[in-house]
Amino acid sequence: MHRYRSHTCGALRETHVGETVRLSGWCHRIRDHGGVLFIDLRDHYGLTQCVVDPDSPAFKVAETLRSEWVVRVDGKVRNRPAGTENPELPTGNVELYITEIEVLGPAGELPMQVFGDQNFPEETRLKYRFLDLRREKLHQNIVKRGQIIDSLRRRMKEGGFFEFQTPILTASSPEGARDFLVPSRLHPGKFYALPQAPQQFKQLTMIAGFDRYFQIAPCFRDEDARADRSPGEFYQLDIEMSFVTQEDVFQAVEPVLRGVFEEFGEGRPVTPVFPRIPYAEAMLKYGVDKPDLRNPIIIADVTAEFLREDVTFNAFKNVIKAGGVVRAIPAPGAAGQPRSFFDKLNDWARGEGAPGLGYIVFEDEGGELVGRGPIAKFVPAEAQAAIAITAGVRAGDAVFFSAGEEAKAAGLAGKARTRIGEELDLIDRERFDLCWITDFPMFEWNEEEKKIDFSHNPFSMPNFDHDAFLALDPADEKTILGITAFQYDIVCNGVELSSGAIRNHRPDIMRKAFAIAGYGEDVLEAKFGGMLRALSYGAPPHGGIAPGVDRIVMLLCNAQNLREVVLFPMNQRAEDLMMGAPSEVTMKQLRELHIRLNLPEK
Amino acid sequence: MHRYRSHTCGALRETHVGETVRLSGWCHRIRDHGGVLFIDLRDHYGLTQCVVDPDSPAFKVAETLRSEWVVRVDGKVRNRPAGTENPELPTGNVELYITEIEVLGPAGELPMQVFGDQNFPEETRLKYRFLDLRREKLHQNIVKRGQIIDSLRRRMKEGGFFEFQTPILTASSPEGARDFLVPSRLHPGKFYALPQAPQQFKQLTMIAGFDRYFQIAPCFRDEDARADRSPGEFYQLDIEMSFVTQEDVFQAVEPVLRGVFEEFGEGRPVTPVFPRIPYAEAMLKYGVDKPDLRNPIIIADVTAEFLREDVTFNAFKNVIKAGGVVRAIPAPGAAGQPRSFFDKLNDWARGEGAPGLGYIVFEDEGGELVGRGPIAKFVPAEAQAAIAITAGVRAGDAVFFSAGEEAKAAGLAGKARTRIGEELDLIDRERFDLCWITDFPMFEWNEEEKKIDFSHNPFSMPNFDHDAFLALDPADEKTILGITAFQYDIVCNGVELSSGAIRNHRPDIMRKAFAIAGYGEDVLEAKFGGMLRALSYGAPPHGGIAPGVDRIVMLLCNAQNLREVVLFPMNQRAEDLMMGAPSEVTMKQLRELHIRLNLPEK
Repeated sequence: MHRYRSHTCGALRETHVGETVRLSGWCHRIRDHGGVLFIDLRDHYGLTQCVVDPDSPAFKVAETLRSEWVVRVDGKVRNRPAGTENPELPTGNVELYITEIEVLGPAGELPMQVFGDQNFPEETRLKYRFLDLRREKLHQNIVKRGQIIDSLRRRMKEGGFFEFQTPILTASSPEGARDFLVPSRLHPGKFYALPQAPQQFKQLTMIAGFDRYFQIAPCFRDEDARADRSPGEFYQLDIEMSFVTQEDVFQAVEPVLRGVFEEFGEGRPVTPVFPRIPYAEAMLKYGVDKPDLRNPIIIADVTAEFLREDVTFNAFKNVIKAGGVVRAIPAPGAAGQPRSFFDKLNDWARGEGAPGLGYIVFEDEGGELVGRGPIAKFVPAEAQAAIAITAGVRAGDAVFFSAGEEAKAAGLAGKARTRIGEELDLIDRERFDLCWITDFPMFEWNEEEKKIDFSHNPFSMPNFDHDAFLALDPADEKTILGITAFQYDIVCNGVELSSGAIRNHRPDIMRKAFAIAGYGEDVLEAKFGGMLRALSYGAPPHGGIAPGVDRIVMLLCNAQNLREVVLFPMNQRAEDLMMGAPSEVTMKQLRELHIRLNLPEK
Repeated sequence: MHRYRSHTCGALRETHVGETVRLSGWCHRIRDHGGVLFIDLRDHYGLTQCVVDPDSPAFKVAETLRSEWVVRVDGKVRNRPAGTENPELPTGNVELYITEIEVLGPAGELPMQVFGDQNFPEETRLKYRFLDLRREKLHQNIVKRGQIIDSLRRRMKEGGFFEFQTPILTASSPEGARDFLVPSRLHPGKFYALPQAPQQFKQLTMIAGFDRYFQIAPCFRDEDARADRSPGEFYQLDIEMSFVTQEDVFQAVEPVLRGVFEEFGEGRPVTPVFPRIPYAEAMLKYGVDKPDLRNPIIIADVTAEFLREDVTFNAFKNVIKAGGVVRAIPAPGAAGQPRSFFDKLNDWARGEGAPGLGYIVFEDEGGELVGRGPIAKFVPAEAQAAIAITAGVRAGDAVFFSAGEEAKAAGLAGKARTRIGEELDLIDRERFDLCWITDFPMFEWNEEEKKIDFSHNPFSMPNFDHDAFLALDPADEKTILGITAFQYDIVCNGVELSSGAIRNHRPDIMRKAFAIAGYGEDVLEAKFGGMLRALSYGAPPHGGIAPGVDRIVMLLCNAQNLREVVLFPMNQRAEDLMMGAPSEVTMKQLRELHIRLNLPEK
């Protein structure tokens, strides 16, 4: 018989009854039923009930066992007594009568229990991560994470992509976040940077002619932690393709993402065809560029309605005169809500820095649609009807208004949409709603510096005739601010999974784009010199995307924090409490790296 | 038709003749045959011959094309004229008659050619890596690397292993090499280390109950470069298993490695069952713990033979009296070699610091085995016969001798074995000979400090009854130095692919092992405190191994340097010449990281 086990703790069934077997695992739970000890033995594969009584030669050792001790047990498989079967356990019809026990790894007093659902402080959980990871939910999350990554990988390969490993010790990249730096021993005063993303390397892989790249890529950003962003490192499904249009990227990536959400979504419906929503439309309808489409509320522009001569609500009229807009946020079925519902939303809006949310409640009075509420009296029936039509509301609904400068009004409307959706419980949490956001503006007006600037990514290809772009007059702000880029986001349930783009592979267009944004050749050279040179030795048109693996896993595990889906995460302060990182180093190490400390004064 | 291509450059066959198609790719080679231009268009998938003549509307553009320009071409597929087919090319029966050309990415003057086999300086190749990667051999190596990693991954999963991602920003590990350090912004004066290997994390994964771990793991060591070791980062197939003996590790890993060598070895035979050679036997027979078993020479100990009373070769007798040994290295068939062969080997041995290699050449004189050579006269016929039997040589062979203190004599014999094997061309290069080296000594005598010390890895489990080990008297040097560890190497063609071990999972045995080697609890705590604590909360017996991915790929690609199998490698001086890493950083960055430079004086 094998030194440690003939079966795993998840393997025994009624067909094994009568066999002498050997298991190894952790003592999950030990119960003493009047001198008979029940030991639930646990390993990665399952749980088996083991029994030992004073008749067994192993009883004396059994009495010394405590929770989480690792033991090997020998014994005979038998049916559980009728009525004590556990149908929720695959091994639940049998038990092991123990005849021999060997203690393989005893355990000291535990700082946290593995058995049960008790909550423990975050610090304890991280310091004793190896215990926390034995607990069912976290253990399953980590297993699921692995399965999801396997599935992503398999789907990418089936799609004709090849996996590569790009360097981790590299040069600073122009992603814009803060780099982690690594001092060089061989080159005094110089530093490597950990990649914020393998962006340049994947483009170079395309320039090298590899055609279809992917990588489950570790990325590093020295930014403060958030629930959905690990401090330090995270993984993305990094993708790049040559000789493609935006449509090709969508066709390659959409089935992969839909596939994993369907495979691991436990039956929750997944958007069959991801809608493509231009950025401008998203800002109008959802007030945000990462809309949660599970929320059925759609914002409408009612500026024209409030401009009507018969409307006398001057607060909005003045906003509009000053160049602002009015957005309507429907609240389906809210007519039945108590006054406190409306007051609470107004209080919330004031907390957001707005003067408040005007609203109209629509009711049916003898077949007539009648609006009520504080501002209804300034809006005559005909205008009310026009608003109702534009906003798509009916009797029984309410509609809130967000007025102001367009970006602000849209933003507040977006937040109100979320809040109303939550308050009215309109969001179906058991669904994955994915969409593409497209046509991001290439440039925007930088009000502070009174100049045109890049809107998002300077390295995306403008969606504009190339020759016409090269001929653009930098003073032609109207045309320039209307140019969109081949840049896109993919969003799931209001979470941005990734940005992507068709890259600007033409040095001449790159130079022109930087010139339009008022940057000299020097800035371009400093930020992107290496790439620019590479692009000038025969570069194919290419593009890609990089969905965040951790976020996908979070969504699929229904986890609220990345720490629930990462094997050994750091805490919010970027510390590994288990291994003691970061830690002090020796003078010798510092000398070898040609640095000394520069500590803040106490 | 698709914006860029209807087919790849490897797709067209005779079945496509007559079709109008679109290709995109790089102008690999352009030939002008009397006004007709032949353009070999290349992409990742292959090469297609394209033709354009003055009758084509695309001719004018075609005349402007240069090597490595990226173009889209439209045209009609036709058969190549009879006699001009190229059977070595999958597309070699057809060509594309071009009717339209679009330049997608022009190329400047090339610093190195892509077409052809010309050699370019290492620096040029690395600086323009994206060009070098377009060249056939390197391109294929990188593709093969990806396929090998895919295959390793698939085989591990089929073996029931799960893939995990362990942290890259972590604490210094006790691997013994120099760490790369990352200064912490949030914790002034503290540093992360990049993992030299995920050793501790994989053990913690076992302690967390995950049972079967693997990872294609990036590892980082700030050591000077060698041909088979990248400066900076490398990848290993990191493996760990719970509830296993050494035999289980062998059974799990051996088929994976044999499998990839068979799959990618292009028909070269692979050892069907890896021999297991105890360390002591390897040192005797091969003079090294990473023997190249393709070399048929086996070293023998002939100390006893030279001790015979009838032997009067006092140089060796004195060595033996001083506690040394004599090793015999057969040179099969060397009797026919000229005197210069023996002189050259003697010169080489003196270059290695030895007094020279004695030798005897065995010849057949009328059915009698007769030894000749400088020392033969000190060795009478009967002793010669005894040596011939022990060393396994026959008439027509020679045998060299290495005498001295055991480790030195063995080492020299090992080198001589390699040299003789190469000189006599005995090594079959078209084979993969794999073996396990087992039973490494746990401790060794530290002659400098006159104390017992760890021989290899202090964290391996001794192969010794646990209770007897705990009861060892540290003064019982004889017993202690005889203890072996459950530690093993896997070796292919003389290249060490990995060390592995059954880990010491028992804190009490760990403490005892450190005590035997004269280390206090403080050293243990400093080097291994976190692990020791983790082991005390219920640890399973576990063990693993971590074969080097880059070395496996090197062997399978027949590459002499890691840079031939890594996508974007650094140079020997740990520089990325393409991206310009390492590089200087700003004062602001240094301040944020609480460090300043400490540059060497000029």
